[in-house]
Amino acid sequence: MREVAIIGVGHTKFGKAGDKTALELFSEAALKAVEDAGIDLREIEALFQGAALLGFEEGQVMPAVFSAADLHLGEIPATRVEGACASAGLAIREAAMWVASGAFDVVLAGGVEKALAMGTPFATRTFAMACHAYSEAAAGLTFPGVFAMAARLYAHRYDIPLEKLREKMACVSVKNHFHGARNPLAQFYQKYGDLKVEDVLRSKMVCDPLTLLDCCPFSDGAAAVVVCAAEKARKFTDTPIYILGTGQGSGTPLSKMEDMVKPAARVASARMAFKQAGIEPKDIQVAEVHDCFTIAEIIALEALGFFGWGEAADATEEGETDIGGRIAVNPSGGLIGKGHPIGATGASQVFSLVEQMRGEAPKGNQVEPVPEFGMTDTLGGDFGTLCNIILGRTRRKK
Amino acid sequence: MREVAIIGVGHTKFGKAGDKTALELFSEAALKAVEDAGIDLREIEALFQGAALLGFEEGQVMPAVFSAADLHLGEIPATRVEGACASAGLAIREAAMWVASGAFDVVLAGGVEKALAMGTPFATRTFAMACHAYSEAAAGLTFPGVFAMAARLYAHRYDIPLEKLREKMACVSVKNHFHGARNPLAQFYQKYGDLKVEDVLRSKMVCDPLTLLDCCPFSDGAAAVVVCAAEKARKFTDTPIYILGTGQGSGTPLSKMEDMVKPAARVASARMAFKQAGIEPKDIQVAEVHDCFTIAEIIALEALGFFGWGEAADATEEGETDIGGRIAVNPSGGLIGKGHPIGATGASQVFSLVEQMRGEAPKGNQVEPVPEFGMTDTLGGDFGTLCNIILGRTRRKK
Repeated sequence: MREVAIIGVGHTKFGKAGDKTALELFSEAALKAVEDAGIDLREIEALFQGAALLGFEEGQVMPAVFSAADLHLGEIPATRVEGACASAGLAIREAAMWVASGAFDVVLAGGVEKALAMGTPFATRTFAMACHAYSEAAAGLTFPGVFAMAARLYAHRYDIPLEKLREKMACVSVKNHFHGARNPLAQFYQKYGDLKVEDVLRSKMVCDPLTLLDCCPFSDGAAAVVVCAAEKARKFTDTPIYILGTGQGSGTPLSKMEDMVKPAARVASARMAFKQAGIEPKDIQVAEVHDCFTIAEIIALEALGFFGWGEAADATEEGETDIGGRIAVNPSGGLIGKGHPIGATGASQVFSLVEQMRGEAPKGNQVEPVPEFGMTDTLGGDFGTLCNIILGRTRRKK
Repeated sequence: MREVAIIGVGHTKFGKAGDKTALELFSEAALKAVEDAGIDLREIEALFQGAALLGFEEGQVMPAVFSAADLHLGEIPATRVEGACASAGLAIREAAMWVASGAFDVVLAGGVEKALAMGTPFATRTFAMACHAYSEAAAGLTFPGVFAMAARLYAHRYDIPLEKLREKMACVSVKNHFHGARNPLAQFYQKYGDLKVEDVLRSKMVCDPLTLLDCCPFSDGAAAVVVCAAEKARKFTDTPIYILGTGQGSGTPLSKMEDMVKPAARVASARMAFKQAGIEPKDIQVAEVHDCFTIAEIIALEALGFFGWGEAADATEEGETDIGGRIAVNPSGGLIGKGHPIGATGASQVFSLVEQMRGEAPKGNQVEPVPEFGMTDTLGGDFGTLCNIILGRTRRKK
């Protein structure tokens, strides 16, 4: 297997896309990535696109092909992959695998979603289709419900009074909104930058114990990256960022899940990525993790091995996940501050890490010194699909 | 890149699945494939699943993960790929690529759909989302309309009176129904086996010049295959069938398509597959091609290189695509006779070819002598996604 690099990244403004269609959003992000890479469109040999619900949002199935056509990529293979909110993570993983295999040298990958137009109640209901249809969605479960249960289980498991846990969870929201407010591409740019824990606690209750500010927003947006064989990367750029390892794991319906606060699929996925990268959690200086809800970030940080079981809530409260802390978590704003266009999120995370590792993060959000290793964590459904991508500024040690 | 073999295949009865869910259908096909391969479920390292519209059919997004859970595959990567009616072809192609790359040794791939429950008008409308949403579906175009236009263009281009072309197209329907009637897994098993050209012509007009018998049915069903590194295949089976080459191509919205009866994406995809396999169209003895409508088979046969441009309609009428003819086309019944559960069709085609190449086709449908080389052709949307898979009874010549 060959080594793989990212040579270009592109990202639309997250938030309300208005009249722009999903295909237009994707083309915008893709063209930025291609321009950033300094390549000609004719050098792209395949396209992988993550998109979760475009059929419901715009009546568009098979969007990857039409994106390839919009981008004038010719008859190259263009494939949509769908793993709910992890779709773009899977798309980039596919691209990395294909380049690693030697089949292709340059592949475009990313994701897109236009979720805002559905309106909150319909979006919530539509998103819930990524739960198990027969045992969960049919019972009325939605994602706020899933993560409210997870929060209660976490409090119970680690013997933390629920009100105390709410305060610790609120620290995730404060931190990620703080970062998002400084990210010009974020949905909440220049908003909620001075949020306090009390603001989160007093915000509208969505699903007890999760308030509105514990939840990520609905968003439109797209992000894309150009993946290239590492041996050819320096032909295009002086700052290739290497994909050192990727992982993917699959969960079960909740009724068969052994432990909701120790998601086995995430543990397996992270293990796969770390093994391939040849590094350990302690080597990572920056992570973009799937904070669809505040509690989700806490659970993720433990499953990825950054903190022991039951320790991430306290660590967050103590600032260990701030920029300048033990590991900077979601310095882009994460899903909570940057926004969560579901099929695009995995690519947005990679975009934000590449910015960090090039030393080009938005003002105030740059981790110092420039991180050597970064990691994404993208979750689809209620612990159904997990995808991790580990990036490095230098190639893998042999 | 390593060579790849198929060591097991499974297929549900196509037609009306009744109370069985899509996940149950997929598990049924997958377990048959696993049993056929004689492997333990624990040997499967990844799952690729094609599914086009399960969100609309059953409110189930991210089905691959739940299929992996149903099959007790553990936390292995489980990925849904979507290329409309070509979804399962892409899933098998992904599996083949991953095994070829050396990343995995044994991968399960297939597809599923439960389309019948939607009812014809809703299914037609829902399927049309695989057209370009803004320029085609919004204008009221549906797939019968697309292929009726293609038939008229074909008649015009090759100066064939439309009534004459209708007779030639009817020969596709007669042939494929004849085969389907002898295939116990086909939706039309023991039905329409003695259809005459006049029956097709006099059948209900759906979209002029296409009658009901020019169209494939809506279907429920699933099919799956086990893909394995060629060097390990004989550990499991005495009759591995090798994946010699695969191809994938992408089209454009119809408004930008150069020539609807010479689909460039199909030509590109077939060329990719033939190049990888190191053989030519004349080497293929059996093909399962995407006959969603009778005219679609004719167009496919020319684009794949089996017949010259404008020659496949005559060749069909002259019996050259019958079993015993120059090349046996759709001896399983094809989409018209076997049924078309959209996300499953590409895997069903591979299943049928593997049967042929093992000499185990349904009675009366076996091509003699047992074919050395076979080819699938799967189409998603209106010439949007093309996928081809070339199979051989022996490994690639070095």
